[in-house]
Amino acid sequence: MTQMKIPVVRNILQANDRLADANRKVFDGAGIFAINLMSSPGAGKTSLLEKTIDALAGRIKMAVIEGDLQSDFDAERIQRKGVQAVQINTEGGCHLDGNMIQMALEALELRDVELLVIENVGNLVCPAEFNLGEHEKVMILSVTEGHDKPLKYPLMFQLCSALLINKIDLLPYTDCDIDVIRSSARQLNANQAIFEISCRTGDGLPEWLDWLEAKVRSSRGK
Amino acid sequence: MTQMKIPVVRNILQANDRLADANRKVFDGAGIFAINLMSSPGAGKTSLLEKTIDALAGRIKMAVIEGDLQSDFDAERIQRKGVQAVQINTEGGCHLDGNMIQMALEALELRDVELLVIENVGNLVCPAEFNLGEHEKVMILSVTEGHDKPLKYPLMFQLCSALLINKIDLLPYTDCDIDVIRSSARQLNANQAIFEISCRTGDGLPEWLDWLEAKVRSSRGK
Repeated sequence: MTQMKIPVVRNILQANDRLADANRKVFDGAGIFAINLMSSPGAGKTSLLEKTIDALAGRIKMAVIEGDLQSDFDAERIQRKGVQAVQINTEGGCHLDGNMIQMALEALELRDVELLVIENVGNLVCPAEFNLGEHEKVMILSVTEGHDKPLKYPLMFQLCSALLINKIDLLPYTDCDIDVIRSSARQLNANQAIFEISCRTGDGLPEWLDWLEAKVRSSRGK
Repeated sequence: MTQMKIPVVRNILQANDRLADANRKVFDGAGIFAINLMSSPGAGKTSLLEKTIDALAGRIKMAVIEGDLQSDFDAERIQRKGVQAVQINTEGGCHLDGNMIQMALEALELRDVELLVIENVGNLVCPAEFNLGEHEKVMILSVTEGHDKPLKYPLMFQLCSALLINKIDLLPYTDCDIDVIRSSARQLNANQAIFEISCRTGDGLPEWLDWLEAKVRSSRGK
């Protein structure tokens, strides 16, 4: 069905991987653990970041790259928390790529940064296909999106080492079955860490923060 | 930021527009009013279609093209309602294009069909860029996605002649402000018809159905 576009996408992905490799070298050289945070629009990426920044303040030095089609609302939300943030505007592009991250890194003071979170454009499809040089891909799924999403958007679930099921405070008002999300996600990715959270109430966040902090510590121990 | 990709996208879009024009001729020749239905994953496209099919049964003859990365759950849901449905699997592609619709049309019996709804891949970005030959683009935004979405994903709001704000039954449990959605959507597209609906409770659906039925009737009157 997509024969017209496939060769083009392949070239872009190859070119992108070279830039992602260069970014990874920058991260490793600077002792930075980098995460590529992805989800549908409005699943709670920026809210999770705000909660994570508050919880890790004084323990882990963070920086954030915000990706959006346009606007810098999200970078503003992060900066208000006292954390260095760069905004990338893709101007219509539906995902971040290695080149954009390379440019954003030039605008960041990387010294002492231990954890870099790259918040991708809200999209459950294309961001999964473009490596940015990150150490781990992490995704959020909101319970309001429905439990059929893992089987409908499998690549994202296959590639993410952690899945945060957000907005569990809304669960009683939806038809979403978290067991179905868990079992389909497991089918796609047996090693994925799964967290049930609510950024609104704070439920489940300690388990996520433990996982994240352990990743940062073990990356710096290498 | 996207200079590496822009020439490629332009070529694809030009090639796509030729196929979209050919599809439009097929629709017009057969007296079919065609809608391109778009939203983020899980905003309620298939649920809206099910409610719309039930309400228009015996009044307007419908057919549906379902777009998904993979799986045919959605086409099955439609067929269970007694409506002709074709499933397109993009196998990783983040949007439908003119070529895919051309192939799907060959698999449909178009005789007597008055309304064709094309349910696009769940994605608030790329589907807006690819014309399929449709007469109107229609979008759904769920209140759980947040009121900042129009300004963050402007092209989709600019191009859609109708915006359905869905899941208003969840409004009391979110921080979403529908007035903000309305005013930002208005800024982007002054002529957009806006409907506040809940596919779950049925609230607001009569206004949407009146709009849709008037569009189908006036298209056939031409």
